[in-house]
Amino acid sequence: MATALTCSAAELGQHLAGATNTTAAATYICGLFSQVQNNYTDTRYAIDTTYLLFSAYLVFSMQLGFAMLCAGSVRAKNTMNIMLTNVLDAAAGGLFYYLFGYAFAFGEPSNGFIGRHFFGMNSFPIENYDYSHFLYQWAFAIAAAGITSGSIAERTQFSAYLIYSAFLTGFVYPVVSHWIWSADGWASAFNGNHLLFGSGVIDFAGSGVVHLVGGVAGLWGALIEGPRIGRFDHAGRSVALRGHSASLVVLGTFMLWFGWYGFNPGSFLQILKPYNTGTYYGQWSAVGRTAVTTTLAGCTAALTTLFGKRLMSGHWNVTDVCNGLLGGFAAITGGCSVVEPWAAIICGFVAAWVLIGCNKLAEKYKYDDPLEAAQLHGGCGAWGIIFTALFARKAYVNEVYAEGRPSGLFMGGGGKLLAAHIIQILVIFGWVSVTMGPLFYVLHRLKLLRISADDEMAGMDLTRHGGFAYAYQEEDDPMMKQGIMLRKVEPTINNGSSPSV
Amino acid sequence: MATALTCSAAELGQHLAGATNTTAAATYICGLFSQVQNNYTDTRYAIDTTYLLFSAYLVFSMQLGFAMLCAGSVRAKNTMNIMLTNVLDAAAGGLFYYLFGYAFAFGEPSNGFIGRHFFGMNSFPIENYDYSHFLYQWAFAIAAAGITSGSIAERTQFSAYLIYSAFLTGFVYPVVSHWIWSADGWASAFNGNHLLFGSGVIDFAGSGVVHLVGGVAGLWGALIEGPRIGRFDHAGRSVALRGHSASLVVLGTFMLWFGWYGFNPGSFLQILKPYNTGTYYGQWSAVGRTAVTTTLAGCTAALTTLFGKRLMSGHWNVTDVCNGLLGGFAAITGGCSVVEPWAAIICGFVAAWVLIGCNKLAEKYKYDDPLEAAQLHGGCGAWGIIFTALFARKAYVNEVYAEGRPSGLFMGGGGKLLAAHIIQILVIFGWVSVTMGPLFYVLHRLKLLRISADDEMAGMDLTRHGGFAYAYQEEDDPMMKQGIMLRKVEPTINNGSSPSV
Amino acid sequence: MATALTCSAAELGQHLAGATNTTAAATYICGLFSQVQNNYTDTRYAIDTTYLLFSAYLVFSMQLGFAMLCAGSVRAKNTMNIMLTNVLDAAAGGLFYYLFGYAFAFGEPSNGFIGRHFFGMNSFPIENYDYSHFLYQWAFAIAAAGITSGSIAERTQFSAYLIYSAFLTGFVYPVVSHWIWSADGWASAFNGNHLLFGSGVIDFAGSGVVHLVGGVAGLWGALIEGPRIGRFDHAGRSVALRGHSASLVVLGTFMLWFGWYGFNPGSFLQILKPYNTGTYYGQWSAVGRTAVTTTLAGCTAALTTLFGKRLMSGHWNVTDVCNGLLGGFAAITGGCSVVEPWAAIICGFVAAWVLIGCNKLAEKYKYDDPLEAAQLHGGCGAWGIIFTALFARKAYVNEVYAEGRPSGLFMGGGGKLLAAHIIQILVIFGWVSVTMGPLFYVLHRLKLLRISADDEMAGMDLTRHGGFAYAYQEEDDPMMKQGIMLRKVEPTINNGSSPSV
Repeated sequence: MATALTCSAAELGQHLAGATNTTAAATYICGLFSQVQNNYTDTRYAIDTTYLLFSAYLVFSMQLGFAMLCAGSVRAKNTMNIMLTNVLDAAAGGLFYYLFGYAFAFGEPSNGFIGRHFFGMNSFPIENYDYSHFLYQWAFAIAAAGITSGSIAERTQFSAYLIYSAFLTGFVYPVVSHWIWSADGWASAFNGNHLLFGSGVIDFAGSGVVHLVGGVAGLWGALIEGPRIGRFDHAGRSVALRGHSASLVVLGTFMLWFGWYGFNPGSFLQILKPYNTGTYYGQWSAVGRTAVTTTLAGCTAALTTLFGKRLMSGHWNVTDVCNGLLGGFAAITGGCSVVEPWAAIICGFVAAWVLIGCNKLAEKYKYDDPLEAAQLHGGCGAWGIIFTALFARKAYVNEVYAEGRPSGLFMGGGGKLLAAHIIQILVIFGWVSVTMGPLFYVLHRLKLLRISADDEMAGMDLTRHGGFAYAYQEEDDPMMKQGIMLRKVEPTINNGSSPSV
Repeated sequence: MATALTCSAAELGQHLAGATNTTAAATYICGLFSQVQNNYTDTRYAIDTTYLLFSAYLVFSMQLGFAMLCAGSVRAKNTMNIMLTNVLDAAAGGLFYYLFGYAFAFGEPSNGFIGRHFFGMNSFPIENYDYSHFLYQWAFAIAAAGITSGSIAERTQFSAYLIYSAFLTGFVYPVVSHWIWSADGWASAFNGNHLLFGSGVIDFAGSGVVHLVGGVAGLWGALIEGPRIGRFDHAGRSVALRGHSASLVVLGTFMLWFGWYGFNPGSFLQILKPYNTGTYYGQWSAVGRTAVTTTLAGCTAALTTLFGKRLMSGHWNVTDVCNGLLGGFAAITGGCSVVEPWAAIICGFVAAWVLIGCNKLAEKYKYDDPLEAAQLHGGCGAWGIIFTALFARKAYVNEVYAEGRPSGLFMGGGGKLLAAHIIQILVIFGWVSVTMGPLFYVLHRLKLLRISADDEMAGMDLTRHGGFAYAYQEEDDPMMKQGIMLRKVEPTINNGSSPSV
Repeated sequence: MATALTCSAAELGQHLAGATNTTAAATYICGLFSQVQNNYTDTRYAIDTTYLLFSAYLVFSMQLGFAMLCAGSVRAKNTMNIMLTNVLDAAAGGLFYYLFGYAFAFGEPSNGFIGRHFFGMNSFPIENYDYSHFLYQWAFAIAAAGITSGSIAERTQFSAYLIYSAFLTGFVYPVVSHWIWSADGWASAFNGNHLLFGSGVIDFAGSGVVHLVGGVAGLWGALIEGPRIGRFDHAGRSVALRGHSASLVVLGTFMLWFGWYGFNPGSFLQILKPYNTGTYYGQWSAVGRTAVTTTLAGCTAALTTLFGKRLMSGHWNVTDVCNGLLGGFAAITGGCSVVEPWAAIICGFVAAWVLIGCNKLAEKYKYDDPLEAAQLHGGCGAWGIIFTALFARKAYVNEVYAEGRPSGLFMGGGGKLLAAHIIQILVIFGWVSVTMGPLFYVLHRLKLLRISADDEMAGMDLTRHGGFAYAYQEEDDPMMKQGIMLRKVEPTINNGSSPSV
């Protein structure tokens, strides 16, 4: 228990009165201050852990968001399949991250490439890494796997999913997070020995570490598998394969928005850190500002998409707006803590056009990604890395990282940060490509990656997952035959002016 | 970083021993206490910000609740439309509230009518208003807009929605919140210069500021547009137009309940505030009590509605119970922090009957509000304002507001609070009427408010939003034709005894 | 307001200089330390209340999870009914727990069997029990009722539900929680006067108090009612009656997972409690560890179920995985705070097989439980109680409970804890059986328990709840007739090798 501070005036008075023995008085007083300091230490751990744990719970809730977003975005016949992959991203991710993922990422001391302690939480916790940190990082790791599963939805064998998901969560992603976020990482802004370009990479909550990694992995998977049957017609024109429930898409998007407040502001890990002790302005302000920049980037991207898509397609489309919103979030994630709110608006505005542009490119090159995951997380994530290097403000970089670091190019900070960030994009693209690319390719050659055409037509839920996601029993209620829910959709052929319906 | 407190007994002993220079000892000791005080200041900001930010996240999650409640309460053919308005309430609200809404509401110092600082977060943050406060207030602002969109659902042009939503979130609502919640507001209980009736308005979390504002705005919109086609038959009888998914209604209701714990207890803004330092009873207790009064009011209203509607209609109806529950919450919102738990039960009981009564009135006067939003948020919100003026307990008013303020009429506090609260209802009704009423009327005259009858019959999703919310592709799974989901509903004609099915 | 600490060096210097009056100096210094201590006390209450309240909100969100899980697991025609029971578990539970449930559970001082203070929150709060504690415990109470409503879904009269739910939440459950969690309870590990087997029961978050209680109550209800019509065919073979929406099942499961982070780690009630003041390791670490053990048990159970069911049925079934996951959570709940992460993996692995085994048994004995609630919460809950008695680690028991308590049998702690836990299982089973069993039986004999066969065939939503949960109006959109949602399911007859489809 916390020991209560008791100061006895009688006792202290005697000490003070003993002119020959002032040491006793001083010892008494200092003993009390020592208790005060201990209480403060305990208080800091309790507050920071509370902050970090509830942030971790929010990040975890994004897995629910992903599951609903994915379920709504695929056709009804593949709903069971995609939801199972989302549940397993979390479940298998929990075991793998416990066994070795966390060790690869944060097992300090180590080298710049990969960590090597804490396997199976051995010798855990230590002063800087407590269980709450593990939980928070686990929730991040499973988010990366979730992104990839969107890209290859509706046509991938379940056993292939099990293999690539384990490899991504347990190895590919942890290594990248080691580089950027561990104190030993070669590109880390927390590296005390060597800073890349005197700066290190500022990827605060992971536009690169999470979103670009997940997006590039999905890109290779979807490229190697090829598009779903019917996604492009015989003349090569794009045919929209609409998801079966916009309600689930909106539900998932709002849950992701909710969870992003754990993802971005939570990445401070600590909230009780004064920048100038005893004043109203401290890390708690920076945390709040990060929540605001996150919000504004997403809001701007959503509005930009709304009007942009309206001009292009003639519709006010809610699922497009949802994707635009998420693109804004993916972009601001890297720089959310070091940019001004007005800059976040620029970030979101550009992110919306990046997503629209990537979707145009995808259509042109017949790239089929049911969740637009590579475009959204990869494209907007990459933009976010560049954006940070342009708009990071010196005062905030000093507060959040350290004094004397380069700020963004447009904020008078020179090109060092931009150089580091271009390196980051290239290296992440390269690393994920040389690990995930061959994996997908080998699975493909072994006929383990894609399901058969018959299975794809029938849907994976019937053939692999024990049945359709929605069911009724006729014998129970014959009158229900009159009812309906889904609307039959005639394939829509895009003539180039409208990227998707 | 937080500087660690170091007390050197050797050094302090020397100071104390120097009988000629006790100043050094005193300075040393006081320097340490100064550090202790600074650490405490930092601690307070960190705790209070943690509390406020997570409360803000909860309030934000209500937007998800609104979206699902609204989606489930409308017919399937308008699901995309209503969900888009909910996403945009949050997104457009974010930009407008950043640009000027927050400035109108809290831009101090200013006059009693409207704020005038912090446009675009200029000169922000200051000691009393940090980024977390902005985020919290933004989440409130978008809730008001969400209420209104329910009243005019299923028949309003999307461009009209964009206009009124911006006007409401950016101007009408912020002005009211300035009056009641800013230290400069003419009716504010925090106004240091002048208190209306020596009291100011006690609208703790916004039965008036949020719910009545949103409800009155919706009332005018729905009145001017008129009822949906088919809502009243040729003989003028009420015909229920059932929402398409009770599952979404229940999902939305639970999310709103969850979020209300951010809305009401969160409105304390701070949790580390002792009422009598060093004891177990402080603002943290009041925060908990507020969560309890909120819970009890909603629970009682739900049960009252359950049995009341059972007697009137013969059914145990879950969507009615959900609306009753929300009516109880809307009513307790104003007084939640200053009433006893037993009073909250009275509040909820009456709120249920207020809602039932308002729905009867609406039916009688052929007022069509698909979400019962004006009845629920307007009617129960107004009751909540009166309730507070009757049941506010002196001890709690003293703790939460200030010493010497009038308490409720039934609690021996006289009629001053009631007078202030009647003024509040009248002024809010008037202000929203003279701003939103003409706006809706002008849109109506310009043929910009209501969609065409053909579009209304076909549904807005098909005509404006690119397609139906639920979709399947026949070519993929011909067997699915046998399935069903929605049940065909024959129009139900109410003969007056049952307001809705 | 918090008084700022002001130390005047001038004044203190004068005191110290007055060699004849060192009492004044000592009093001055001790006065300041007293303020520091008061501030620390206030800080602790603020942090712990923040922690407990947000944990309570998370536990409350499990009610949303239950509602969606239940809704998705029943047939569409009973969706309104089951959701209404979930809303009412929370609403009626709120009133009953306020009026007497909390008093029965925590009304100290009292006897070992039942509490007797705080009826209607009379004389509340006191030093150890604040409003936040009430809210947290209420959220637990309604979870128990939710479990039971799953067992007897799709065939129980609504009035019977109202009766048993009130009895369970208001009396049966509170008494058990008094035994185990109150300082006066006869089996409580917090009992200062007498510890059962020198240990008391370690049921940290309620594998027994919540899950076994809810499961046994459901078992009796479902046994007495008998299986749903069509659940076993004329030859006695099991026929799967599939739930109508796997999307809702997954949504509900993820919400329950999210809420479990309030359920298990939140059960510490306080987070600012050092184990060794001034170090990085304290109750905040134990809280984080508890979140990790919870996660790992659920993840392991999910994966075990995935592969186990794949081997048995040939499918990768997402709803089975969801149930396995929840079984792992129910099992770890009792020991989550006192076991190592590796032990949690064992816990989850066994829990998955316990659930599979219980389901086999249920099928063999023609026990029909639409949510597998008795199997999952009862079976896995009982396993969790045993597990704790085997794997509780001494160091953690000392920290979380008290020094000198017995640890688990396999951890070198002897059999005392196991003895206490076997007693717990037997007594809970007996208590719930002798209270809920007769209640269900009397309702059954009075023809108040089960609905008529006709009503069961037609579905309760149509006959009792005013209509089907999903609706469309044909006149609005004649084209929608082509659409579909649910798939007709031909009854599947299991031949023993696959427990369910």
